[in-house]
Amino acid sequence: MSDLYTTIAAIQPLDADAMAAAEARQGMLTKPPLALGRLEALSIQLAGITGNPLPSLARKAVAVMAGDHGVTAEGVSAFPSEVTPQMVYNFVAGGAAINVLARQADARVVVTDVGVAGGLDGLEGVRHCNVRPGTANMAAGPAMTREEALRAFQVGIDLVEELAADGLDILATGEMGIGNTTPSSAIIAALTGLPVARVTGRGTGITDDGLARKVAVIERALAVNAPDRDDPVDVMAKVGGLEIAAIAGAMLAAAAHRIPVVMDGFISGAAALTAARLCRAMADYILPSHLSVEVGHQVVFAELGLTPLFDLQMRLGEGTGAVFGMIIADSAARTLREMATFESAGVTGETVNA
Amino acid sequence: MSDLYTTIAAIQPLDADAMAAAEARQGMLTKPPLALGRLEALSIQLAGITGNPLPSLARKAVAVMAGDHGVTAEGVSAFPSEVTPQMVYNFVAGGAAINVLARQADARVVVTDVGVAGGLDGLEGVRHCNVRPGTANMAAGPAMTREEALRAFQVGIDLVEELAADGLDILATGEMGIGNTTPSSAIIAALTGLPVARVTGRGTGITDDGLARKVAVIERALAVNAPDRDDPVDVMAKVGGLEIAAIAGAMLAAAAHRIPVVMDGFISGAAALTAARLCRAMADYILPSHLSVEVGHQVVFAELGLTPLFDLQMRLGEGTGAVFGMIIADSAARTLREMATFESAGVTGETVNA
Repeated sequence: MSDLYTTIAAIQPLDADAMAAAEARQGMLTKPPLALGRLEALSIQLAGITGNPLPSLARKAVAVMAGDHGVTAEGVSAFPSEVTPQMVYNFVAGGAAINVLARQADARVVVTDVGVAGGLDGLEGVRHCNVRPGTANMAAGPAMTREEALRAFQVGIDLVEELAADGLDILATGEMGIGNTTPSSAIIAALTGLPVARVTGRGTGITDDGLARKVAVIERALAVNAPDRDDPVDVMAKVGGLEIAAIAGAMLAAAAHRIPVVMDGFISGAAALTAARLCRAMADYILPSHLSVEVGHQVVFAELGLTPLFDLQMRLGEGTGAVFGMIIADSAARTLREMATFESAGVTGETVNA
Repeated sequence: MSDLYTTIAAIQPLDADAMAAAEARQGMLTKPPLALGRLEALSIQLAGITGNPLPSLARKAVAVMAGDHGVTAEGVSAFPSEVTPQMVYNFVAGGAAINVLARQADARVVVTDVGVAGGLDGLEGVRHCNVRPGTANMAAGPAMTREEALRAFQVGIDLVEELAADGLDILATGEMGIGNTTPSSAIIAALTGLPVARVTGRGTGITDDGLARKVAVIERALAVNAPDRDDPVDVMAKVGGLEIAAIAGAMLAAAAHRIPVVMDGFISGAAALTAARLCRAMADYILPSHLSVEVGHQVVFAELGLTPLFDLQMRLGEGTGAVFGMIIADSAARTLREMATFESAGVTGETVNA
């Protein structure tokens, strides 16, 4: 079993030989050069991540990490915390959006309780890895101890090692945690030094007054806790979330195992930025999916040097945007693997005119 | 069997009751209001199209229409016309990008020879509906007669009636025809009155000189033929294409049968604009997919009052962009049908704070 340090140390650069082979093959497939647009670059990235010039993404999983947030006491969310365990029951019963979309994409949904405040005792179909029953209110002190944060990262690492042992070709990240856009904004503000208002949005749908209060709460949390922006674990402990740490751990473990990991919306974005600050090579292993309505998501893309694949004006979380990213990545891998070449199909490949 | 007139006459407005029911259900599903973004509006449109408040899109097909273009004699394409039948062989063998993506989406690919110049005699797996062996060179005279254009529309109508009789829930349109961005630009320029240069791009990849020649050829075709912009059939006959007319016919027939039809890239866009000029209600039945790299595609979206769902910088045709649109539409229908409601899942739905 790897810990956070050995996981980070195991992350290698992309495989340049596999990428060169994939790029050469793209030029031989029966289509005009670059006509598949971003699918082609994605297929080359997938070759580099997996080390396989003909990658296959048959075995898919969505990791849904759940946790609660003491900061909801400050009135930062439009929904009450009791919805977190209620939605975990919904995931287990197969009735949430992520279940429907994962069925369509032929992906497993794996739900982990990293830090739900309560109500899940004995529930089957959930990985019970509760580090603590919700974070403390970060507006009054640290969300968790450094040791708790490290245990939450470890929950994500352990999950990916378990899935990788079973066989996993691509991972999508998702989450459930009422109030979790608040710590996500705090993490991004802390790691980038940007003003809180620049990276804070309406979450599940608060009003103008609610948004102003949310910004003030995050500013207070940053002032009270003074997280060290050069120490991402400190940032996660002081103003983060248990499920966010678990996602970051899962992303790092995926990279260490050469498994592409699809970033979902804003909360997964905060986790991705944390993971990338712990290991600069991480960003090469992240596949983008949608641009969330949540304003700070654009900052994450810019910081990671990524471009969203699409924008369907979604803001649900759970991994719902990442599932579409997984489908597009699968298309990229399939076209690279399965398309005929000009030679094999007997199609005239050289351009004439002009 | 319906002809073009009876097909147009059969197109009804969207079903307002089914749309109201779908919209009400969206508000009860276990997610914050509007959190599924464009999927929600799509699901409501699908209810209106099908007349079913819980639409299912299980049975999918991609109609690939093939035809050749006499105007290639003017050097407007980067590939020679022999590639059209070669790619039809590739479709039948399952090696083209559209085959790979359709397999992923669990969609049938139906290939129709509407007007390939030759080389397909006796090929199994193709619907042989050749109206004429390629259009005439529109730079020197009409691409086809009005009667031939009507027969090409009819090929698309007949196909959809055949598929609908078997059971079809959603149709994606695609095409293969070396040179067919040239008549597509001509159609769009003729129907909108916009300058040719504004709606003409590089197709499969011509140079700057090639692009200037292509614009000049289209301008000559419009001057020589003087198509009547108020008569879309005249425009199609004089400066159109056999496969483009067939796509337009298929779109109209899909609307007449209350089957949603996904628009692919630029050539399908020219067909969609033609269909919408023949019947204003048509646009409500069209689902957008990608924005093509081809510059005139944006004009089509604006004219139809549609917004692309995504932009992956694709420019391949065949229906490859439309397949992703079909997947997203399926997601919209599935989430509407399959997600639990707040009540059924026992999730607290009312917002609190703020």
